Amino acid sequence: MAAGANVDVPSVAVVGGGQLARMMQQAATGLGIRLRLLAAGPDVSAAQVVRDPLVGDYRDLDLLRQVAAGCSVMTFDHEHVPTEHLHALEADGLACRPGPAALVHAQDKAVMRERLTALGVPCPRWAVVHDAAGLDAFARSVGGYPVVVKTPRGGYDGKGVWVVDSSRERPEPDQVLLAEERVDFLRELAVLVARSPSGQGAVYPVVESVQEGGVCREVTAPAPGLDPDLAVEAQQVALRIAAALGVTGLLAVEMFQTRDGRVLVNELAMRPHNTGHWTIDGAVTSQFENHLRAVLDLPLGATSARAPWTVMVNILPADAAVGPLTDGYPHVFARDPAVRVHLYGKEVRAGRKVGHVTAYGDDLARVRERARHAAGWFAGTVEDGDHE
Amino acid sequence: MAAGANVDVPSVAVVGGGQLARMMQQAATGLGIRLRLLAAGPDVSAAQVVRDPLVGDYRDLDLLRQVAAGCSVMTFDHEHVPTEHLHALEADGLACRPGPAALVHAQDKAVMRERLTALGVPCPRWAVVHDAAGLDAFARSVGGYPVVVKTPRGGYDGKGVWVVDSSRERPEPDQVLLAEERVDFLRELAVLVARSPSGQGAVYPVVESVQEGGVCREVTAPAPGLDPDLAVEAQQVALRIAAALGVTGLLAVEMFQTRDGRVLVNELAMRPHNTGHWTIDGAVTSQFENHLRAVLDLPLGATSARAPWTVMVNILPADAAVGPLTDGYPHVFARDPAVRVHLYGKEVRAGRKVGHVTAYGDDLARVRERARHAAGWFAGTVEDGDHE
Repeated sequence: MAAGANVDVPSVAVVGGGQLARMMQQAATGLGIRLRLLAAGPDVSAAQVVRDPLVGDYRDLDLLRQVAAGCSVMTFDHEHVPTEHLHALEADGLACRPGPAALVHAQDKAVMRERLTALGVPCPRWAVVHDAAGLDAFARSVGGYPVVVKTPRGGYDGKGVWVVDSSRERPEPDQVLLAEERVDFLRELAVLVARSPSGQGAVYPVVESVQEGGVCREVTAPAPGLDPDLAVEAQQVALRIAAALGVTGLLAVEMFQTRDGRVLVNELAMRPHNTGHWTIDGAVTSQFENHLRAVLDLPLGATSARAPWTVMVNILPADAAVGPLTDGYPHVFARDPAVRVHLYGKEVRAGRKVGHVTAYGDDLARVRERARHAAGWFAGTVEDGDHE
Repeated sequence: MAAGANVDVPSVAVVGGGQLARMMQQAATGLGIRLRLLAAGPDVSAAQVVRDPLVGDYRDLDLLRQVAAGCSVMTFDHEHVPTEHLHALEADGLACRPGPAALVHAQDKAVMRERLTALGVPCPRWAVVHDAAGLDAFARSVGGYPVVVKTPRGGYDGKGVWVVDSSRERPEPDQVLLAEERVDFLRELAVLVARSPSGQGAVYPVVESVQEGGVCREVTAPAPGLDPDLAVEAQQVALRIAAALGVTGLLAVEMFQTRDGRVLVNELAMRPHNTGHWTIDGAVTSQFENHLRAVLDLPLGATSARAPWTVMVNILPADAAVGPLTDGYPHVFARDPAVRVHLYGKEVRAGRKVGHVTAYGDDLARVRERARHAAGWFAGTVEDGDHE
């Protein structure tokens, strides 16, 4: 064996330089795996912590080929890489995980609805509507307005989603839209699945997520008080979707738990997901490590929780005038030596996800208070006297 | 506030690019702290995972100044930076943590013995010997040969340490040596302390370490069957040393547990330490995060163990012909989905520390078997049939 040959390590190309790629890099470092990063800017979140990041546009096929050089597999921090580029890369012999045939279901909500319905997966009632008459017809079919309308492509964190009371309120009137019934839900749940090309699937405990304005604020693992049969059903739905769509890597399935005791699939994401950040400190294997193990077709890690309760709260600054986030450390760490803080190296803007906090323990109310206080302190939304 | 001002994050200069700096980088990434690295080569362990590493010799004061530019604090992957350089950097206004006045006790074993003895810390009997007659006199004073001799400076991982049966065997006869009684120990223990410039100290549970040929092979946390009073005594000794020596950052105190129920201090290290690697997966706050929190004078994280037993086993390859370590993943991960593997990106050489494995759980025998099997598999020292 040539000298140095045994330091060869698998290299994984990652497209996108946000916090998901940043946290992937922490897992890759532990596994002795090298990430090659294509980032939108030289100093975005993940580019700060990866050796020699490539900077450029993920819509540029030449750049995608460049970042993939020397890598056996490509994966993603977001779902926006054009599928035609992924087909071209696969024709080059590169494994894209997830591949374009799976990824389209996370890119296009109408394609996703059609496929899930064909699979018999419980969803809200839906229709693709082309005009005001179509929207009115759909609304009548679900008992009237209000209904939810979505742009099939390009939405995230609540962008591209509206609740409308009549077809006059219809946004983007020239565009084909996805209309969905407005579900009378008790709460939102999420199920995270890792799936390897060999077909192994590993599912994390069902979590409860709290969204505000379409943005995830808080996640509790496991979902408190969830009927065990419904939890298994939710996990089976997620595993079935991952297998049927041929997902490789992580799949996050966001669901509504209805007041009449059903789970309906709301959204899919094919990458590590905000509802899985709790796994870094709260599960045996983090979602980021399992994502890498899945895309490299390695056996998946244990998904069990390490504590009875884990609560993750996003740091969402009240406004851009919040100072450097690390200024929050003296208070937060002195108050709670066991709280886990993750900052993403991102510039503070109002409502932007710039970090998260995780707490775990035996007493859910206490765990939740700890995580909320710390996240709120960084975000500038709690005062010193706001805690118990 | 200027645009972008609130992405300013504390930057820490780290001298040395080994696995300790690599694991520091994982912690820094989570904390949103930037590491500036001075590494001996462009592709050593930590240089693979840090943005824009500086490459050069840690004995070059100009390079030390260069890596410190823009940093408020400097810390270390090893203890070999000349103290005169650290004094010069402190004169420049840079905080070196640990500082030269503390670090000398980890660089020079004779200075360490003198200081600990003055503090009343229990140590093996020792003497600085200048020649054969001095060694013979020391041997007589401790009941005769064999005795241990050490070079006061430059030793690590068992290098610079010999057990001799007569003064004729004395190594490096022209050099002043440290002679120590050969302690009849039951086992070796280690205590890890984090200490901040403000004077906060946080101590981890006492662990048992197994050394072979001066190299750490295995660590069990907590030390099985250790008398609680002796555990507290060992922790108090470590905290007292950290405070008396003015350590900032981590201090590892390696100890002998004698057959007559005492603890004697063997060695000191002022940095994250192999006996603390178990804390990454096994404690609330890893030693790497607490090292960074300490050097930045932030409140320290909880040091408690997360499981009843945690066992860490080093991956020490049998010979250099072991293939790429990541080839071990399919077997290791399929056999044990909960084992935690850390590879350092280092070229495989016989007996070199190239990674470690951690297992945790309720049943010590089972936890130990899991960690040993996985580490042995990577190292090429266990066969498929070697497990239960």
